[in-house]
Amino acid sequence: MQPPDPLDEWKSPPFDPTVRGDDIFARGAVDDKGQVLIQVKAVEGLLKATGKLPVNVKFLLEGEEETGGEHIEEYVKTRPPRLKADAAVVCDTEMFAPEMPTICVGLRGLVYGELVVEGASHDLHSGVYGGAAPNPMQAIAEIICALKDRDGRIQIPGFYDRVTPPAEKERAAWASLPFDEREYLEKEIGSIALVGEPGVPLFERVWARPTFEVHGIRGGFTGEGAKTVIPARALAKISLRLVADQRPDEAVAQLTAAIKAATPRGVRVEFNLLSAGAPSLTNPDNPFIRAGAEAMRKVFGKDTVYIRSGGSIPIVGVFDRYLGIPSVMMGFGLPDDNLHAPNEKFHLPNFYRGIESVGRFLEILGA
Amino acid sequence: MQPPDPLDEWKSPPFDPTVRGDDIFARGAVDDKGQVLIQVKAVEGLLKATGKLPVNVKFLLEGEEETGGEHIEEYVKTRPPRLKADAAVVCDTEMFAPEMPTICVGLRGLVYGELVVEGASHDLHSGVYGGAAPNPMQAIAEIICALKDRDGRIQIPGFYDRVTPPAEKERAAWASLPFDEREYLEKEIGSIALVGEPGVPLFERVWARPTFEVHGIRGGFTGEGAKTVIPARALAKISLRLVADQRPDEAVAQLTAAIKAATPRGVRVEFNLLSAGAPSLTNPDNPFIRAGAEAMRKVFGKDTVYIRSGGSIPIVGVFDRYLGIPSVMMGFGLPDDNLHAPNEKFHLPNFYRGIESVGRFLEILGA
Repeated sequence: MQPPDPLDEWKSPPFDPTVRGDDIFARGAVDDKGQVLIQVKAVEGLLKATGKLPVNVKFLLEGEEETGGEHIEEYVKTRPPRLKADAAVVCDTEMFAPEMPTICVGLRGLVYGELVVEGASHDLHSGVYGGAAPNPMQAIAEIICALKDRDGRIQIPGFYDRVTPPAEKERAAWASLPFDEREYLEKEIGSIALVGEPGVPLFERVWARPTFEVHGIRGGFTGEGAKTVIPARALAKISLRLVADQRPDEAVAQLTAAIKAATPRGVRVEFNLLSAGAPSLTNPDNPFIRAGAEAMRKVFGKDTVYIRSGGSIPIVGVFDRYLGIPSVMMGFGLPDDNLHAPNEKFHLPNFYRGIESVGRFLEILGA
Repeated sequence: MQPPDPLDEWKSPPFDPTVRGDDIFARGAVDDKGQVLIQVKAVEGLLKATGKLPVNVKFLLEGEEETGGEHIEEYVKTRPPRLKADAAVVCDTEMFAPEMPTICVGLRGLVYGELVVEGASHDLHSGVYGGAAPNPMQAIAEIICALKDRDGRIQIPGFYDRVTPPAEKERAAWASLPFDEREYLEKEIGSIALVGEPGVPLFERVWARPTFEVHGIRGGFTGEGAKTVIPARALAKISLRLVADQRPDEAVAQLTAAIKAATPRGVRVEFNLLSAGAPSLTNPDNPFIRAGAEAMRKVFGKDTVYIRSGGSIPIVGVFDRYLGIPSVMMGFGLPDDNLHAPNEKFHLPNFYRGIESVGRFLEILGA
């Protein structure tokens, strides 16, 4: 789960779930407490209705997905017998559009860390020392700009080498999804324009291309008014999203080398890795994926579409690597659910359809 | 006076003056409560000793110097008769070195403001939107890097046009000051190297060249751990130091235009000016400057040196502009007094010699 800040932008307290209209608002409402509950309720419903389950079911619950998930990896790695299964069901993704059943077959990986820059031994007066003393805030800006150009293309040597472009069939399917880029810009993003690599279609930019982002910069003076300080130290939170077949370890090594090469004179720089998770990509022809699609089709009354997600769910890569099983990502969130942001919500009708979909999925597998 | 943060780096409370050895520690100890008190104590001493003053003295005390000083400018501008004088004495600078009487004849001006960048209408998940949504933190980095190159040279068009290089005589005097650049690096700054425009001597870089600095960047997530947010909004505190004959209004216009030109796609940018003060430069042959130098020579027993300061004291430019009078900048701070930083101090022997110097200065003028 993500931290709730900025707290003052929540219309109701983040940890006091509040229903307004057809939505329930809370931190984690849809990502991912609400979607975990879908699986629990589906199993409960089948047991109540029939007294038994159509297939064997194991639950694996963990609460570290947003903070790297290192411990679950160790757990899965060391307990394959206990976790033996034919497939996993992960409810942590979203529907492409309202009323459109959706299965996610690809995820981006994530490398997240802190860039720490040290200049002088103590904060300095910019009048007395400006022109001679290194400024760690400026150094961070210079490193960030060296890592990504103004077009959004990452400048880390070798970084794109393993990026697999989507198949032409996948590109064609994405292009035929019902989607209005202007509406997306205005309603979902609300900026004056979209950005990203020129010439690359939107879905490819957010699902199938890696990214570099800076999430926050700490240091110096940011209060009201003016303080003319050259801070001794500054820190930036940065991340890379990875796509198949990029490897987290390799990306970290490339990033670290690029930071070193971009470090300006006068400062010391360190990159502290906080988490690293692999991207994943599943073939939609897998029988478990097909069963999930069929279950959702029945509940929603419409054909299920296959998409990817730009987000990261490290457990999917971990299941693949250590258990050799595919993950069926049946997701019931909506694009405007405010994931990771204030006023996160879950659309309650999707919560109930999610329970029914997971139940039917188990029935189809048992049949 | 500057804010006291970061508070946790103070060895004694910033607003509870504490004497350790020959120094008194407090926010404003030397910049500038202690130095203001020098003038009060000098006048008090003369009155106690002789019952009268050798020349007429007026005090003008204001407390906004660190936050722009707009009100004092209005006050001086509208009350020249009340403030009529032949010269001003300003104690707000420092000695070039311990035991070395120093008069400052040049100051840098300061333009300080906030760069506000807005992207999306709300914070976004970098997995879902990374590759399509503009990132205001990245935009700030790009603008900052466009304003100053990696060599420290400001890239604002027209910005250097009015910069007057120091006279050869002044350059020669600076080169002969007792100064060890390695010691300055190690003891005063404490970074691994000095920075700034290549080929420009140190004193020229900090006294006679303009600078651009970023003091802090607010926005996004900077707490412990990882939050993969693309912030909707970010803000940077930035400043320019100006040198003679740069004009604050012109510099603000140039900066604003350069920010606009450097603004990347997808974001809205605003520059909010917080303060603007002119640089100043006085001829050392002025009789009041000479009287100040003579007074300090007598008290310290050594010839007074003329330097400039890289800092900004807006009142000096205001006196020059509206009253047409020179300011004698007799300063008693030391280079390691931690101005604007935690553990600011005033070396007490200099406090007492300052009182004596100002008293003698008034006596010389009266003789």
